[in-house]
Amino acid sequence: MENTHNFIMPRTNLMGVGALKDLPTLLLSWKLKKALIVTDKNIISLGYAEMIETILKSLFISYDIFDGVLHPNPTVSFVQDGLSYFHKGINMLKRDYAFIISIGGGTNHDCAKAIAILATNGRAISDYEGYNKVTKPVLPQIAINTTAGSGSEVSSFTIIADESRKVKMTIGDPEITPFISVNDPMFMSTMPREVTASSGIDVVVHAIESYISTEASPITDHLALGALKLAFDYLDRAYNNGNDLEAREQMMYAAAMAGMAFNNAGLGLTHAMAHQLGGFYTGPHGVYNGVLLPYVIEFNCPSVPEDRMMKISETIGQKAGSKGEAMKKIHKAIRKLCTEIGIPEGLKQMGVAEGVLEELSQNALKDIITFTNPRQASREDIINMFKNAL
Amino acid sequence: MENTHNFIMPRTNLMGVGALKDLPTLLLSWKLKKALIVTDKNIISLGYAEMIETILKSLFISYDIFDGVLHPNPTVSFVQDGLSYFHKGINMLKRDYAFIISIGGGTNHDCAKAIAILATNGRAISDYEGYNKVTKPVLPQIAINTTAGSGSEVSSFTIIADESRKVKMTIGDPEITPFISVNDPMFMSTMPREVTASSGIDVVVHAIESYISTEASPITDHLALGALKLAFDYLDRAYNNGNDLEAREQMMYAAAMAGMAFNNAGLGLTHAMAHQLGGFYTGPHGVYNGVLLPYVIEFNCPSVPEDRMMKISETIGQKAGSKGEAMKKIHKAIRKLCTEIGIPEGLKQMGVAEGVLEELSQNALKDIITFTNPRQASREDIINMFKNAL
Repeated sequence: MENTHNFIMPRTNLMGVGALKDLPTLLLSWKLKKALIVTDKNIISLGYAEMIETILKSLFISYDIFDGVLHPNPTVSFVQDGLSYFHKGINMLKRDYAFIISIGGGTNHDCAKAIAILATNGRAISDYEGYNKVTKPVLPQIAINTTAGSGSEVSSFTIIADESRKVKMTIGDPEITPFISVNDPMFMSTMPREVTASSGIDVVVHAIESYISTEASPITDHLALGALKLAFDYLDRAYNNGNDLEAREQMMYAAAMAGMAFNNAGLGLTHAMAHQLGGFYTGPHGVYNGVLLPYVIEFNCPSVPEDRMMKISETIGQKAGSKGEAMKKIHKAIRKLCTEIGIPEGLKQMGVAEGVLEELSQNALKDIITFTNPRQASREDIINMFKNAL
Repeated sequence: MENTHNFIMPRTNLMGVGALKDLPTLLLSWKLKKALIVTDKNIISLGYAEMIETILKSLFISYDIFDGVLHPNPTVSFVQDGLSYFHKGINMLKRDYAFIISIGGGTNHDCAKAIAILATNGRAISDYEGYNKVTKPVLPQIAINTTAGSGSEVSSFTIIADESRKVKMTIGDPEITPFISVNDPMFMSTMPREVTASSGIDVVVHAIESYISTEASPITDHLALGALKLAFDYLDRAYNNGNDLEAREQMMYAAAMAGMAFNNAGLGLTHAMAHQLGGFYTGPHGVYNGVLLPYVIEFNCPSVPEDRMMKISETIGQKAGSKGEAMKKIHKAIRKLCTEIGIPEGLKQMGVAEGVLEELSQNALKDIITFTNPRQASREDIINMFKNAL
């Protein structure tokens, strides 16, 4: 009888060119004393951190900067480094951090979320793997986003790689949803082409996986289809001309909408499999996702209602007369888009060896992100999908 | 250059049959001591307030109940009564209210929002008419919604009637957005037919006005069109059989989505005009809106892009080949839906006299809700629309 579909996202989302302008007013009403900024050296050299520093200075909010996010797959060690920094900052200035500001893409937001959990809840980040394991309120987070893809700035998930086990942990808790997200396409116009491609294709995967998720609701459906259409209309434009601000803006909306969709509907097998590749190797998450997606859709197809397959097909401009035709057209259209934005045809080109696939498949089965996949997969099913995508 | 479209809504939205089940856990983490419940006698007799009381008791949260919301157009005097109750409660128990819980439809949420403003900001509610006039954080609000229409449970607006001036004041501030909304279609299944009709047609007006608003964004567009389709598919079913839980559920989603859309895109002239009728007379807001909408669309049409008119028409199942055809079909389809759910053909049937229209038109021009209407209207334009709708 019970049938709930909660919808969770940051209360305040500043969006569009110049979005930062409303941040000072919001911060003013909070009367905060001290912030920890979590970012990386690239963001600092682009001058984005400085823009935030200027705002904090004008409000007499003191801050420290942790720029130890060193590569795009956030690890346990980044989190621990950030946390030591956090504790050191507390001791030196004898004043607690009141909030955390992440500046960057999904990696930096995810790293900040993990620090925000441990700062108030203690223990090790691996203790929080799974859903709803956080017991105390975390440090409030403001996520200033500089890529269009992860959706982490609006989500209650953080994905942290455990180097020792070579796996990625999915940690999901409404408590870790940022309070404020900032999405300004100006920040995104400096994304290198490869990042535009990998984060952009991630939007397509988020949209499709949440649309066929077992936890989809009318709200997530409309956001997912909207995001999917925008990504197919604008991703290649943003890829081919990073300064095309209209394309950047539309991809920003696409990414945020897909983030709102998957945050509440959940994802599926594509992500569970990409997480394992990202834990074992270090390639970009979005690219693994993009290569895997067509094969996972093929596998899921028997469990997806016909009207949903047809709707996906129609949304990407490929009207189909039957479920089978829709599946073929979707597969082809994703592959075409991937080729246009330089995403390799198979995993082999990314250095993935056949020998590791059994172990990765076993681990993928344990990823909680599979809970909402429409079709139950066995280890063999996953091995086959990996092999098809090689 | 700057082009921002902020998106604001409650962080946590519990939705669906049994949605209340997650409320205790959320309240637990807040560690709250005392609540003021704002509701009406009908909600109490339906037993809905008792369900909330049970939750509060189980968490050892003390509470008082203000049930002085006496009719569906919230007035300054309701707010003042609630506020006296609030101050009395503080004095008697020597313990401040930590938060406010509104149970009911838009009227009760709006009344609670106004009390929440005055409780911490002081002065008179008329001092806050307009946008962003609230300077201090308001009392946090949980909105438990029992109708499918107003969208107030997810919005940063409250509409309060000033009896002395016979006008409705629009008060908008991100600060007054509830922290948690609860939308359980079970609560909505007891709505009387007239309330189903008036709140349901309000969803259609919210969806269309936000879709043609000057502040529409890709996010609000997809939510608005999604809401519009659901309302056209399910409103007459919910009206004809209140126990049709699927129809109630889909109308709940429609109302919340339209609320999310208009909260961020804004509304237009239909609402500005309906507010004046509601301030001068006491008929249901949604019915005024429903009667006025076709004539306002006709007026706005020259300023609405062709593709938007065609998209509205297509969404309600009436594909059109031109803008003119779309307008006619939209007009006809709204009138048809109104007739099916017992909404009168004209304002005269609701007791509106021609003699007051000049004054109401003058006041409508001052309503800040017209800011996002796509076409600038003169007093004469508004008088003409009122007359057409008589």
